[in-house]
Amino acid sequence: MSRIASDTYRSKVMSAEEAAKLIKNGDRVGFSGFTGSGYPKVLPEALAAEIKAAHDRGDEFQIASYTGASTAPEHDGALAAVDGISMRMPYQSDPVMRNKINAGTSEYYDVHLSHSGPQVRQGFWGDLDVAVVEVAAINADGTAIPSSSVGNNNVYLETAKKIILEVNAWQSIDLEGMHDIYSMKLPGENVAIPINAAGDRIGSKYYDIDWSRVAAVIETDAEDRNSPFKPLDQESKTIAENLLDFLGNEVKQGRMPKNLLPMQSGVGNIANAVLVGLNEGPFEQLTSYTEVIQDGMVDMIDSGKLLVASATAFSLSPEAAARMNDNAKKYREHIVLRPQEVSNNPEVIRRLGVVSCNGMIEADIYGNVNSTHIMGSRMQNGIGGSGDFTRNAYISCFVSPSLAKNGDISAIVPMVSHHDHTEHDVQVIITEQGLADLRGLSPKQRAKVIIENCAHPDYREALLEYVARAAKVANGAHTPHDLATSHEWHRRFLETGSMKG
Amino acid sequence: MSRIASDTYRSKVMSAEEAAKLIKNGDRVGFSGFTGSGYPKVLPEALAAEIKAAHDRGDEFQIASYTGASTAPEHDGALAAVDGISMRMPYQSDPVMRNKINAGTSEYYDVHLSHSGPQVRQGFWGDLDVAVVEVAAINADGTAIPSSSVGNNNVYLETAKKIILEVNAWQSIDLEGMHDIYSMKLPGENVAIPINAAGDRIGSKYYDIDWSRVAAVIETDAEDRNSPFKPLDQESKTIAENLLDFLGNEVKQGRMPKNLLPMQSGVGNIANAVLVGLNEGPFEQLTSYTEVIQDGMVDMIDSGKLLVASATAFSLSPEAAARMNDNAKKYREHIVLRPQEVSNNPEVIRRLGVVSCNGMIEADIYGNVNSTHIMGSRMQNGIGGSGDFTRNAYISCFVSPSLAKNGDISAIVPMVSHHDHTEHDVQVIITEQGLADLRGLSPKQRAKVIIENCAHPDYREALLEYVARAAKVANGAHTPHDLATSHEWHRRFLETGSMKG
Repeated sequence: MSRIASDTYRSKVMSAEEAAKLIKNGDRVGFSGFTGSGYPKVLPEALAAEIKAAHDRGDEFQIASYTGASTAPEHDGALAAVDGISMRMPYQSDPVMRNKINAGTSEYYDVHLSHSGPQVRQGFWGDLDVAVVEVAAINADGTAIPSSSVGNNNVYLETAKKIILEVNAWQSIDLEGMHDIYSMKLPGENVAIPINAAGDRIGSKYYDIDWSRVAAVIETDAEDRNSPFKPLDQESKTIAENLLDFLGNEVKQGRMPKNLLPMQSGVGNIANAVLVGLNEGPFEQLTSYTEVIQDGMVDMIDSGKLLVASATAFSLSPEAAARMNDNAKKYREHIVLRPQEVSNNPEVIRRLGVVSCNGMIEADIYGNVNSTHIMGSRMQNGIGGSGDFTRNAYISCFVSPSLAKNGDISAIVPMVSHHDHTEHDVQVIITEQGLADLRGLSPKQRAKVIIENCAHPDYREALLEYVARAAKVANGAHTPHDLATSHEWHRRFLETGSMKG
Repeated sequence: MSRIASDTYRSKVMSAEEAAKLIKNGDRVGFSGFTGSGYPKVLPEALAAEIKAAHDRGDEFQIASYTGASTAPEHDGALAAVDGISMRMPYQSDPVMRNKINAGTSEYYDVHLSHSGPQVRQGFWGDLDVAVVEVAAINADGTAIPSSSVGNNNVYLETAKKIILEVNAWQSIDLEGMHDIYSMKLPGENVAIPINAAGDRIGSKYYDIDWSRVAAVIETDAEDRNSPFKPLDQESKTIAENLLDFLGNEVKQGRMPKNLLPMQSGVGNIANAVLVGLNEGPFEQLTSYTEVIQDGMVDMIDSGKLLVASATAFSLSPEAAARMNDNAKKYREHIVLRPQEVSNNPEVIRRLGVVSCNGMIEADIYGNVNSTHIMGSRMQNGIGGSGDFTRNAYISCFVSPSLAKNGDISAIVPMVSHHDHTEHDVQVIITEQGLADLRGLSPKQRAKVIIENCAHPDYREALLEYVARAAKVANGAHTPHDLATSHEWHRRFLETGSMKG
């Protein structure tokens, strides 16, 4: 059965190759896609072919590419490989795209995910030329059922001059009703977002699409490029245990309810270990107000531990994605997928008292966190939603193994080489060594617990030496630094391949 | 006429000296006071005398001192001078207190103002022992009329085991009705804050006080220690003009309404110049959602330009304070004083689309801002509310003259020596040289406009040299840094007294 119930929309069906011709050099294009789910599956490669052909002819052809977050090789990778992207925002994790950014040939605007949609609406870049959005189906009335991510799709559909839809029959039709589409307005026109609990529904199940701007409809059944699930390593399990012990103590001290508070967690191994730990742990009736639904959350819904999860996208293994597709009718009772301007909105995060937990590249002795840059200059992925949650969480946590590169890199350094989250925003740091609760501490007090509890023993002495040296030479004893050696470890790594002296 | 209309409360009247004996070594004390207004006028000096006497006897006596923000010499200064403060939060600007912090003898927790009250409620420090709060009057029913600042008073009155009130007859009795006391609850228990416009009133005119915890009532008529108004210098006027031109263009481009959006501005000369500029400028029917009411805002209410201002405190010259006291009946129609957990709440700031404007110590070429530390280690004042507003504003601006110390310090540096606001949060930088609109730009693009538009010509060439050198040696071209020389200017200043090579 066709996924296009509207004759009007059916009249616009064309091939990806035909649709790609609607996009021109210099266009600003808003794509669907968030952590490898819900991105357009066929248009980007067709567009990349157009771009390559233009370049072969000696013509200029680049676009500004906006998305929800990261996409997949057949999207970011394909467009980056042909040098098709002049400017990219707000988040990416594709190796080809990353190389273009670090080679300086593509500009990258690494912005808080909650800001990205509203800034397109704000319009300082100029109008959005094209929206390219994957949907699960088009209804007879012209509304559309969203697919496995929402991201900034509502903003792009509302603001773009031209709309290209990819109708993807691989996506479960039973996703219908899982989404909650609510759009923010321009500043000065907003009222309180009426979400008072993680699962509150406040919007529509469908995208309301202005037909007059729909330029093309493409049909596909390609699946989301999901990453396989990695078995949990001992380090991740230990980090997760440290966090769960901390939460258990907060409950014991009466500072958190027995069912905790809505949890947010970043993507990756440690995050999944936390979810596995929660699933096996003592806490019941949990809720989540987060960005992405990972495997661990699906398990927690199955076990009954997790009552409801609010997010903007899936980030599932192929196995969990198959389970989701087969059982979407059940899961949609427990999952709400929202636009990222709502899932990541500071208003709601602060109100609900979210406990945030995000990965990091490094932290320093005073509690500043680097989430984005390798040795100060090289972009890894981007800040994503970590700032949206960290800055507004009830308790903000950052997790990392204490070592990287076989011990040549310490995740705890004298001064981070790039600052994404400042000393004012980071409350808990966790490694496999232990946990540093920084709440209410002065910088000097923080240095003590971070070095003692989180740094790897191989680097502890060198950190204490830095503290002693800084205390002697600094121009003030509040946050003592020796600016001549504060980045010495990073410089040494770049020169010798190891932070070790 | 007495300001204490309740017999019950009158029975607890005592001298400051007697009341001071209620505070013990190790106590956590929550004081009223925000930017030199509404702090207790007599209890702190009496307490300082107790502390000094204890120290003279060889006894330990220190307290943890929490406030709204900065206070005055007879409060922070007096307690710091006798080494009476073991730990201070959330903001201070007293020279004696600052020296203790930078000598390392007092711990200082420099935290976002919107977090400070909720964190006391959260309770990870333990219970609050004493609240010392100035009020303008006590009503017959035991409620109290707040005075010239609200700050964290609601939190301290709700949570302290013992309450000491200072009833100050210098404060205008006509402040009654200017305040709007609304308390946040613990995370998980909050609902949407129902403020949809800067002037919305959602709470009570009075503090509701639990009489059973009131241990002392002190009477005084000492005035707020207000700072005299400095005449506007040309540099501040030029910076203000640059900001007003920018706002005018935003209106012209249709990105902001004709009456702008609610303005927030920090304290100080440049902020006042902006207010003077607004008062003489073309914009009408303005509103403000900010922290403090300064002289310029009072003038704007008088002229009819400013319809309503929401804040948590006054920060007025003695002349403007006298005008306020004489005409509070009129001004209370245009001013709402709220608890700082509401005035600075990210939920409301984001919703209203506030335009923030705060001072800074330095910014770097990539748009990071240092608001707190001199040359990396030495605390100046603190982050205050600048993060609350910056991180959630529709447009966040930072202002500073491009030079300090007669040209020996550049406010634009290769890498800031301390990060309070990251590249992700800073949208506009303004000096007397010009304005850099960083919205939507990659780091390299930002460096270009910041150096061209904001840096002083004396330092421009050296900044461009840094950019060229960093491009050669950096391990990635996204945010190119040369970690060997990124803080060279600060080191040179510490060694030679000038950043100049």
